[in-house]
Amino acid sequence: MSRKKSHRSEAFDSSPKVQIIPLGGLEQIGMNITAFRYADSIVVVDLGMAFPTEDMLGVDLVIPDISYLLENRELIKGIFITHGHEDHIGAIPYILNQLDVPLYATRLTMGIIEHKLEEHQLLESTDRHVVQFGDVIRAGDFTVEFIRTNHSIIDAAALAIKSPAGCIVHTGDFKVDYTPVYGDPIDLQRFAQIGKEGVLALLCDSTNAERPGFTASEKTVGSTFDFIFQEHQDSRIIVATFASNVDRVQQIINSAAKFGRKVVIEGRSMVTIITIAQQLECIRIPENTLIDIEQIKNYPEKKTVIITTGSQGENMAALSRMATGQHRKITIGDGDTVILSSHPIPGNEKAVTHVINDLLIKGADVISQDVHVSGHARQEDIKLIYTLVQPKYAVPVHGEYKHLIAQGKLARELGIPEKNVFILRSGDVLEMNAGGAEVSKEKVPVGAILVDGKGVGDVGNAVLRDRQHLSEDGIVIVAAAVNKDTGELIGEPSLQSRGFVYMREADELIEDCMDLVTEELTHAMSKGTRDNGRLRGIIRDELGNFLWRRTERRPIIIPIIMDV
Amino acid sequence: MSRKKSHRSEAFDSSPKVQIIPLGGLEQIGMNITAFRYADSIVVVDLGMAFPTEDMLGVDLVIPDISYLLENRELIKGIFITHGHEDHIGAIPYILNQLDVPLYATRLTMGIIEHKLEEHQLLESTDRHVVQFGDVIRAGDFTVEFIRTNHSIIDAAALAIKSPAGCIVHTGDFKVDYTPVYGDPIDLQRFAQIGKEGVLALLCDSTNAERPGFTASEKTVGSTFDFIFQEHQDSRIIVATFASNVDRVQQIINSAAKFGRKVVIEGRSMVTIITIAQQLECIRIPENTLIDIEQIKNYPEKKTVIITTGSQGENMAALSRMATGQHRKITIGDGDTVILSSHPIPGNEKAVTHVINDLLIKGADVISQDVHVSGHARQEDIKLIYTLVQPKYAVPVHGEYKHLIAQGKLARELGIPEKNVFILRSGDVLEMNAGGAEVSKEKVPVGAILVDGKGVGDVGNAVLRDRQHLSEDGIVIVAAAVNKDTGELIGEPSLQSRGFVYMREADELIEDCMDLVTEELTHAMSKGTRDNGRLRGIIRDELGNFLWRRTERRPIIIPIIMDV
Repeated sequence: MSRKKSHRSEAFDSSPKVQIIPLGGLEQIGMNITAFRYADSIVVVDLGMAFPTEDMLGVDLVIPDISYLLENRELIKGIFITHGHEDHIGAIPYILNQLDVPLYATRLTMGIIEHKLEEHQLLESTDRHVVQFGDVIRAGDFTVEFIRTNHSIIDAAALAIKSPAGCIVHTGDFKVDYTPVYGDPIDLQRFAQIGKEGVLALLCDSTNAERPGFTASEKTVGSTFDFIFQEHQDSRIIVATFASNVDRVQQIINSAAKFGRKVVIEGRSMVTIITIAQQLECIRIPENTLIDIEQIKNYPEKKTVIITTGSQGENMAALSRMATGQHRKITIGDGDTVILSSHPIPGNEKAVTHVINDLLIKGADVISQDVHVSGHARQEDIKLIYTLVQPKYAVPVHGEYKHLIAQGKLARELGIPEKNVFILRSGDVLEMNAGGAEVSKEKVPVGAILVDGKGVGDVGNAVLRDRQHLSEDGIVIVAAAVNKDTGELIGEPSLQSRGFVYMREADELIEDCMDLVTEELTHAMSKGTRDNGRLRGIIRDELGNFLWRRTERRPIIIPIIMDV
Repeated sequence: MSRKKSHRSEAFDSSPKVQIIPLGGLEQIGMNITAFRYADSIVVVDLGMAFPTEDMLGVDLVIPDISYLLENRELIKGIFITHGHEDHIGAIPYILNQLDVPLYATRLTMGIIEHKLEEHQLLESTDRHVVQFGDVIRAGDFTVEFIRTNHSIIDAAALAIKSPAGCIVHTGDFKVDYTPVYGDPIDLQRFAQIGKEGVLALLCDSTNAERPGFTASEKTVGSTFDFIFQEHQDSRIIVATFASNVDRVQQIINSAAKFGRKVVIEGRSMVTIITIAQQLECIRIPENTLIDIEQIKNYPEKKTVIITTGSQGENMAALSRMATGQHRKITIGDGDTVILSSHPIPGNEKAVTHVINDLLIKGADVISQDVHVSGHARQEDIKLIYTLVQPKYAVPVHGEYKHLIAQGKLARELGIPEKNVFILRSGDVLEMNAGGAEVSKEKVPVGAILVDGKGVGDVGNAVLRDRQHLSEDGIVIVAAAVNKDTGELIGEPSLQSRGFVYMREADELIEDCMDLVTEELTHAMSKGTRDNGRLRGIIRDELGNFLWRRTERRPIIIPIIMDV
């Protein structure tokens, strides 16, 4: 699976080619966006965001650099969204204000997108198309067909992207669920049919490619809820799960109804999604089951269930606020059973454990193991899809590098020759047709654009470096007024700091700093130095060295010199 | 396991009591330190540090508040260290410069402590005693016996702490290893004997109390290394593991010698510990096996092994530098097999995955599963110790709250009544004798003292809040010179920022800020305002609001006004 191989023939050179151009999503979980190009037609699959990594201090979210799409804007025939998770739709508002292109998605996916567009005042200006599974959309030289899959959100789709160069199947995020809670199982017959007709390349979800076996059906979690509800009839029950997992919420509501409990839904994002799901009839809530959080006090605690956000230990989410006693409506205590129906996303383990400890300290019983199933295909599921589709080329997508490598190994085990397995990086251009496939030497520009407040792209490496530096050692600001004519300081220099030391207890240090600055400035000016830049440089160097010797810290030093 | 129960009788009230006073370590992993008091004698077990949590920006390490020990300094008869891990010894240099008390530890533990004392110029002034297993040290009204255990570091000890009120057994961190690599298995006979004589309380390691079954022997990892070395005879092999796990390093060296490979040890902390272990003959390195990193180029790659630090994905450790191509001596490539002989400590999962991805991208083969065993007892091992010791009271220690709760459940399953299981918090005073046990209403002061550079305790909540604020939104500094007599600004105000926006591309924003400041100051002074505090407040408020409207960020604003 070397990245530098090619596999070309005369037929490759002489026939038209389709290009697969990942613009994000291959180096990390998140920010999924892929362009497909044939001649003068481009289609785009997904416009996802990523959450900031730990070194992106203060950043709210990350969106892909779409220079390539902007340069070729008139060639783009459509944007096709596989499902409604943030890593597939989160960048839409930041990109559709720059691109005027029709948007295609299934019903619930579009419902969630529309809510987002509305918040950004883009609803009216966006050309939206709700598609049914089986619909085939013509988009320039391409046709794009939506194929039903299963995932941890309803209405997820795979795409069959056909051009004169051949058919490419993109699974999106998926699992194989023979007994889904809502709707039908993944359309394996259609995968088989398309495979039979001949598929050039399969872009398949790699998230769980390291895990052996099959992913269990969402319905298995329903049985677990029934069991837990049976065993905890004297407790109030609080269940935290992903806001967008409508099927999970459905199953909690089913168990609640079965045991005669009233249900409160709490947490902004969950209320939003469940409201959309209700409007679209993707969830069936028995009458007189749902109550408002204000009403909960009118029912015995053991006759209530609270379904809430915060299963990832997110600081501001409802569950964290309950755990730390900061939730206005819900107080956790001895009689509570809290279920975390989730698995920590990598990086969130510690935050989740923190919430669990806080809940235990408040006296709650906490159940966090085995009340969740993944939304992603494991090895045997992946093998099933490959075996139905039988692609000529394997292009693992959706995962970290190690996951892509793991799927590459699976593909080879299934008989796809090593030279036909492509582990791409964002910005690569993979060209292919029936005669061969090759990663082009040309790259397209890619990158991460940071969104912080209203600013899109105004926080870059320089700002992040400063934030890092400030967060570790703080800042010291020295201001001095000087008379350039006489070379004398006017009054005492002033000194302030933030994030450096607790100033009220650092009198001696501050005094020594002021003495040093006074001395250095007076000395420099007595030698004839008048240039403010040079004077500032002297303060920065001398005060920096002095503070390092005294504290072993290197705060940012800002000297301000005022000529009077 | 309510925390508020007591269990007292007449005998409790009338007889002398021993107190167990945890001064740290019960709310988190790390910072282990416990005082035991009987009448006018105090003994202290362990002086550990903790690593800073995510919100302790810029902090190097955390040590316990020892006000209680300082107040009672003349009562302290000795400090007893269970083993040489940082969470048990890391605070020693910061505490022994305030307390002049004899220190007791086993051989390797003392070797590591001495290296630390030397770095802090405290070696000469410290009263050190190397103890053998079985030694009983008299310390005021106490005797303390060192009992051999097994752990992920050699020479770990449990302590039997006897006073006239009864015997308390403290396991330290431990596992049960029937076939340790170095030395003897845990002294189960002695645990049994002491148990037979009667034990008041057992303080037992809870780290793995949630995990069923037994912890495997360290030797099982040796067989795994042999197997991997057998399968990868054409690769250079790089093994990352914990610096202090001398037995692990021994086994890697054994496999290397067996397959005729030369061994390089790389990474400062690992070199330090292995050097100490060699001096103390705790590790046996066959002649002509160890080579210097400079010599490695003289051997075929497939005849070499590099043992290194960085198995937790630590940024600056050797393995991370190799993975990112920043290591001066080792370049990772296609021919390398990298083994992570470790399990990510909670919170490090993402960093470890990052390193693995980087290594895979460079072409290395990475093995990170099942090349590690834990150093902590699992449920069945914990049950064994309880059954040998048969304590009257169970006091789970070493673990997060959820681990303590899990061990409490085990103790009850073993027949210890709920009222005899004590889940303590740091600062609690648990008093006990044969007649009863009770958590006193009085607490002792406890807390976390932050160490940042040379500063011990000068970074507190105010500084951390500023660092957090600075890291998210940066800082804006505005300086203006004013003539208080005329109420006029002299020249233009100056504006600088760090960590806010990229200033070179924010001309318009800066200009608008300067206009605003000029206007507000001129306006305020025209209305007669002359007080610098009030003028600064106006700038802070107005500029803050303006920047929020424009950017949705709230940088710290530092106004500087100079009277001229």
